Amino acid sequence: MSVSLDTIMALAKRRGFVFQSSEIYGGLNGCWDFGPLGVELLRNIKEQWWRAMTLREDIEGLDAAILMHPRTWEASGHVEQFADPMIDNRTSKARYRADTLIEEFIERLRKKGKHDQADALDARLRAATTPDDYYAIITEAEIPDPVSGTRDWTPVRFFNLMFKTFVGPVEDASSVVYLRPETAQGIFVNFKNVLDSSRRKLPFGIAQIGKAFRNEINTKYFLYRTREFEQMEMQYFIPPGSEQQYFDYWLNERLQWFLSLGMSHDVLRIKPHEKLAHYATAAADIEFKFPFGWGEIEGIHSRTDYDLRRHQEYSGKRFEYTDPYSGSKYIPYVIETSVGATRSLMAFLCNAYTEEEAPTADGKTELRTVLRFHRLLAPVKIAVFPLVNKDGMPERAEAIYRDLQRRWKTQYDDSGAIGRRYRRQDEIGTPYCVTIDGQTIADGTVTIRDRDSMQQERIAADRLVEYFSLKLSQ
Amino acid sequence: MSVSLDTIMALAKRRGFVFQSSEIYGGLNGCWDFGPLGVELLRNIKEQWWRAMTLREDIEGLDAAILMHPRTWEASGHVEQFADPMIDNRTSKARYRADTLIEEFIERLRKKGKHDQADALDARLRAATTPDDYYAIITEAEIPDPVSGTRDWTPVRFFNLMFKTFVGPVEDASSVVYLRPETAQGIFVNFKNVLDSSRRKLPFGIAQIGKAFRNEINTKYFLYRTREFEQMEMQYFIPPGSEQQYFDYWLNERLQWFLSLGMSHDVLRIKPHEKLAHYATAAADIEFKFPFGWGEIEGIHSRTDYDLRRHQEYSGKRFEYTDPYSGSKYIPYVIETSVGATRSLMAFLCNAYTEEEAPTADGKTELRTVLRFHRLLAPVKIAVFPLVNKDGMPERAEAIYRDLQRRWKTQYDDSGAIGRRYRRQDEIGTPYCVTIDGQTIADGTVTIRDRDSMQQERIAADRLVEYFSLKLSQ
Repeated sequence: MSVSLDTIMALAKRRGFVFQSSEIYGGLNGCWDFGPLGVELLRNIKEQWWRAMTLREDIEGLDAAILMHPRTWEASGHVEQFADPMIDNRTSKARYRADTLIEEFIERLRKKGKHDQADALDARLRAATTPDDYYAIITEAEIPDPVSGTRDWTPVRFFNLMFKTFVGPVEDASSVVYLRPETAQGIFVNFKNVLDSSRRKLPFGIAQIGKAFRNEINTKYFLYRTREFEQMEMQYFIPPGSEQQYFDYWLNERLQWFLSLGMSHDVLRIKPHEKLAHYATAAADIEFKFPFGWGEIEGIHSRTDYDLRRHQEYSGKRFEYTDPYSGSKYIPYVIETSVGATRSLMAFLCNAYTEEEAPTADGKTELRTVLRFHRLLAPVKIAVFPLVNKDGMPERAEAIYRDLQRRWKTQYDDSGAIGRRYRRQDEIGTPYCVTIDGQTIADGTVTIRDRDSMQQERIAADRLVEYFSLKLSQ
Repeated sequence: MSVSLDTIMALAKRRGFVFQSSEIYGGLNGCWDFGPLGVELLRNIKEQWWRAMTLREDIEGLDAAILMHPRTWEASGHVEQFADPMIDNRTSKARYRADTLIEEFIERLRKKGKHDQADALDARLRAATTPDDYYAIITEAEIPDPVSGTRDWTPVRFFNLMFKTFVGPVEDASSVVYLRPETAQGIFVNFKNVLDSSRRKLPFGIAQIGKAFRNEINTKYFLYRTREFEQMEMQYFIPPGSEQQYFDYWLNERLQWFLSLGMSHDVLRIKPHEKLAHYATAAADIEFKFPFGWGEIEGIHSRTDYDLRRHQEYSGKRFEYTDPYSGSKYIPYVIETSVGATRSLMAFLCNAYTEEEAPTADGKTELRTVLRFHRLLAPVKIAVFPLVNKDGMPERAEAIYRDLQRRWKTQYDDSGAIGRRYRRQDEIGTPYCVTIDGQTIADGTVTIRDRDSMQQERIAADRLVEYFSLKLSQ
């Protein structure tokens, strides 16, 4: 997979997958809009995740508000700890995450073979906790600004990543609320509500899809690090002692989900966290091989009873669960699975991208670009072409199109040579093209061309709905 | 439909449709969370709207970011004009929309028969534009605070309803962005991007579902007026001159949509706007008969070229369209259809609520509560019951349940008398209950009980998937 990010971004814009947000006003950094094909791809990804999560006996759905009571973020630790160290260069006016600046300097040292110096800085970076720690490393190692080359740094400050806003007309501390930086807390604060209304017993999970917002210092890599993004999170509530069993179970389930939707083992890997949060017993990322390197697309975390215990403490409400069999009382432990919906859209887009030699009608070969989406993810399922725009073919093709498009996302295309029309559909990943030709008029059959094999088969037009019902079912 | 809002809210909470947001911290006013049943109902409503809109030949989908470039809201007029007049009472500390306060006072005058005075105030209210206008009406008419009865009012101020936040670490005017107060502008700013990438010709529409935020002074009526809500909007781009034709078309289409999903003409009405915006040629609301009275659930607006023209002016980008047949150039006109997704969920919930006499097993009658949701909207489609928990029935019922729940949202219930289990499913609107009894063990048949008719039919268990595939298809 040697495709560059620039190629993906250009295709995404040209064919209507992803546009820069508010592009006509110069864009808003870290925000993206999903065009006609992007919104279908995103919907399909979310639908597959939702089905995998909630069409089971043990998981309920939820959709909590983006604006939550500010105490939520005190309990979760986000008000105090959800911050990045930030530093500015006075000459270039460029702003950096201090830890990233140091990491990149260490990387450059290693490339120059200065491993001792790199190791020493690395050790100091791992130990750093205060703004002064980071500032001392940057100034003592004489790290220059990558843009201007100067060393006139401002002090390091911690910057909280939550977007804040004000409820009501008065803009003061008492009216501050935050845009949620993750969907998980909406699940935790509703644990009792869901448990009571759904009459559940442990183990059971709560699944949610929704937007989250982080005021990142540096956005990067297209949809990979953005300020507005969408998450698909599931919290699985379990009895203490079973955390290793369910962590292993969910790590495997989630890996299988990506494999079942067309990714292969060579673009996926599991990376256990080197450093665990103090409350965690295990954590691992599922990483995808992006054009820029390996990057996280999902995190699986064994979080003990940390979250529910904190909310119990801050709210004064009881989060204890009484086991109906043993009668024992405890605060449930949690296994969390957390996917970026928009980030995994980018992974599915990169995964699908293929350039290959294909035969043309006149026996030569040409390069074709194909998005090899899984049929359940493909934004457009079927394209309908009249071979030529005469002899009753357009009328017949339009009737067939109208019948199919009420059921599946279908495109009609009558412009240009048939080969060009195939290429257009290949480039957006349409799995099936139906062509209406002279024989259709004669005997009522049409050809169906498969995107990947490029094989054609001929079937009766009146069997198309049945054919696609089978091909496009879950 | 004499159900009260309190009854609906209590049912919504008890059975897991809607919870108060951040309830454990005392809630966040104007925000609501959707529980296990609410999220399914909301998803079903959105899915039906999305299918009705995008499984057509002339409409594309879109999903734009919630955070947009601030110039968007200058162009749209929201920075300048999207404000409500607000007044505080010094004794009660209560805050009111000044216009609402005056309207309610006029209402009270009418109830006392003082129509002349009411008419005079009404005329002044309609003419009011500045804070001083509103303040003069309130003080001269000696309107008292409904809470404290006092007249110690603060001056009237205009308060912009957009939530603002800051992108980046510096909180000043240059970093202000707003949470979108409507999804429509995300469609307008992407008009050219969608047109170019989808190779569309007019007329065509762009449909979008997403969250919007308004910092309302007073929230009210459960999901009716909230600070965070979800919209389903479609902008239909047309040649100037065809606006009346398409306005009529879309008004009818949208009314039919509500009718097709189980509402009747007696709970719906069309209310043309009395006062049109200066740029509009027509506007009408579809209103639903809520427990508190008639309230808007959708607006259909003929907006001319106002929006695209303003964005052209503010961005310097060209929004002109060249007609491929006539060659004429123009800025498209727009017909907008705008539904509240969360508000219409409340309407569907109220519409479905029924209390009726039902026969019991021992020949008496009892009151049953039924949510008569359209089968496509019902959050749970099927419930599976073993008649008794012995004689192989639970094992057989569980196997049938497992088979069905991979395809449709299905519940298993083995607790309590069969009548009680029916009542529980009726109360959440499950259209079909499958019971496994002694005869199932003997001959492999099960009963299916219909929610509305309460009729039962017996079919072979191995035909259930086929049966429900037909019943639950679009």
